Amino acid sequence: MTASARAVVLLSGGLDSATCLLVARSEGFEVHALSFDYGQRHRVELERAAALARRYGAADHRILRLDLPARSGSALTDPGAAIPKNALGREAIPATYVPARNTLFLAHALAWAEPLGARDIFLGANALDYSGYPDCRPEFLEAFERTANLATKAGVEGSSPFRIRAPLLRLTKKEIVLLARKLGLDFALTISCYDPGPGGAPCGACDSCLLRARGFREAGLADP
Amino acid sequence: MTASARAVVLLSGGLDSATCLLVARSEGFEVHALSFDYGQRHRVELERAAALARRYGAADHRILRLDLPARSGSALTDPGAAIPKNALGREAIPATYVPARNTLFLAHALAWAEPLGARDIFLGANALDYSGYPDCRPEFLEAFERTANLATKAGVEGSSPFRIRAPLLRLTKKEIVLLARKLGLDFALTISCYDPGPGGAPCGACDSCLLRARGFREAGLADP
Repeated sequence: MTASARAVVLLSGGLDSATCLLVARSEGFEVHALSFDYGQRHRVELERAAALARRYGAADHRILRLDLPARSGSALTDPGAAIPKNALGREAIPATYVPARNTLFLAHALAWAEPLGARDIFLGANALDYSGYPDCRPEFLEAFERTANLATKAGVEGSSPFRIRAPLLRLTKKEIVLLARKLGLDFALTISCYDPGPGGAPCGACDSCLLRARGFREAGLADP
Repeated sequence: MTASARAVVLLSGGLDSATCLLVARSEGFEVHALSFDYGQRHRVELERAAALARRYGAADHRILRLDLPARSGSALTDPGAAIPKNALGREAIPATYVPARNTLFLAHALAWAEPLGARDIFLGANALDYSGYPDCRPEFLEAFERTANLATKAGVEGSSPFRIRAPLLRLTKKEIVLLARKLGLDFALTISCYDPGPGGAPCGACDSCLLRARGFREAGLADP
C-alpha cells in the first residue's frame, strides 16, 4: 500500500464507524467517507458523521439520499413503529433491522470506490456485541466481497481486488471502546442512539444505547 | 408457488427487461416493477418502463432515484462523455459500463422484495449477446443471490430463499426477440438505445441499438 491509497469508509456517526475511520487513517489511507440519509429517525447522526469527517481529515464526505422502496420494513424508518426499549437480545433479529441495509450501503460504496481507485471499503460491522442483524456477520461480508469482485471492471481486470474491511468484526464492545480511545477518538462527537430526543440526547434504552453503555462500563470509562 | 406469489422485476424499459416482465407474468407472479432514475442520458426509457408496467398489469411500479456517488464513472451518466458508436465488441468492457449498477439495482430490489414477501427477483441480464458488462454474468448473479440470502432476515430464517431470476441469461438476442413475440410483447413500447434523440428516436449505432438490430434481423422480424 502506498501512502496515498484511498479507502471508502461507511460512516454513520456512531462509535463503531468512527472507530473504523480512525483505523483506516492509522493505516495511512486517504479517507472518502460515505453516509446515507435513508429516512432514519435518528438522522441527527448525519451531523455527527459530518463533524467526524471534518475532525479526522477525511478527503471527502458524501451524504447520499437513499430512496428506500419500503419504509415500513423497519422500526428505524417507519415513523409509526416503536423502537424496542430495554429489550437487548430479546429478539434474534429485532424490529430495528432494515431490509438489505448493508447490501445497499456497500453497493453504493462500491459504486464510488471503483472510479476513485479505492479498493478498501471499511465498515463498522460487529458480530459479537451487536443487535443480531444478519448483514453484520462475517459470512455476509465475505459473500459481498466476492460479489463485488465479480460485479466490477476493476474486480475482473484487476490484480488488486476489492476488500471489504470490518476491523471491529470480532471485537467486543469493550475492546472497541479501548481501541477508539487508543486511536484518539473524541467520543463526544459520536452518537449511537436509534431514538434520540431533541438535540440528539440518547434515549438510554434502545439496543444501541445499551450496547454502548455496556462497552464503556466494561472498559472502565465514562461516556461523555 | 401459489397464484398470488409476488415477484420484483427490474424494468428498464428495454426489450430484455420487458420480456422478463412477461416471463414473470406467464409464471403467474404478481409483478412489482422497479426502475431507476440514475442520471442516465437515455432517461426516456423510464416513460417506456411506466407504459410497459401499465400495459402488462404490474401491481405496482416504482421509479427510484439513485444518487450515484460518481457520475463520471460511465459514459451513460457523464454528460461530457461520448457514447461509443459502431464499436460493438471493440472493448471487452465498454465505456457505457456503470460501476456496480446491477449490484445497486439488485440491492434495492432486495430491500423492496423482503417486506413485500417476494422471493423472486427478475432481471433481464444476458451473457451471450451483450455488451460485456461483468455484472451480467452468471457467476455474478449467483454470488449476489448467495449474498442476498445471507444479508436478510427472510434469507436467514426462511425455508424459501431469494432467487435471482435471469431467464434470458443464456439466450441469444434472436431467441429473446422470438420469446418476446411469443409472450405478446408490443415491441414498439420498448426502447434499447443508450443515446436517443428528441422524442426517444434510437441512434442506431450504439452497442444497444446494434444488438437489438441483430436480434430482429436474425429472428427475421421487423423492429417497429
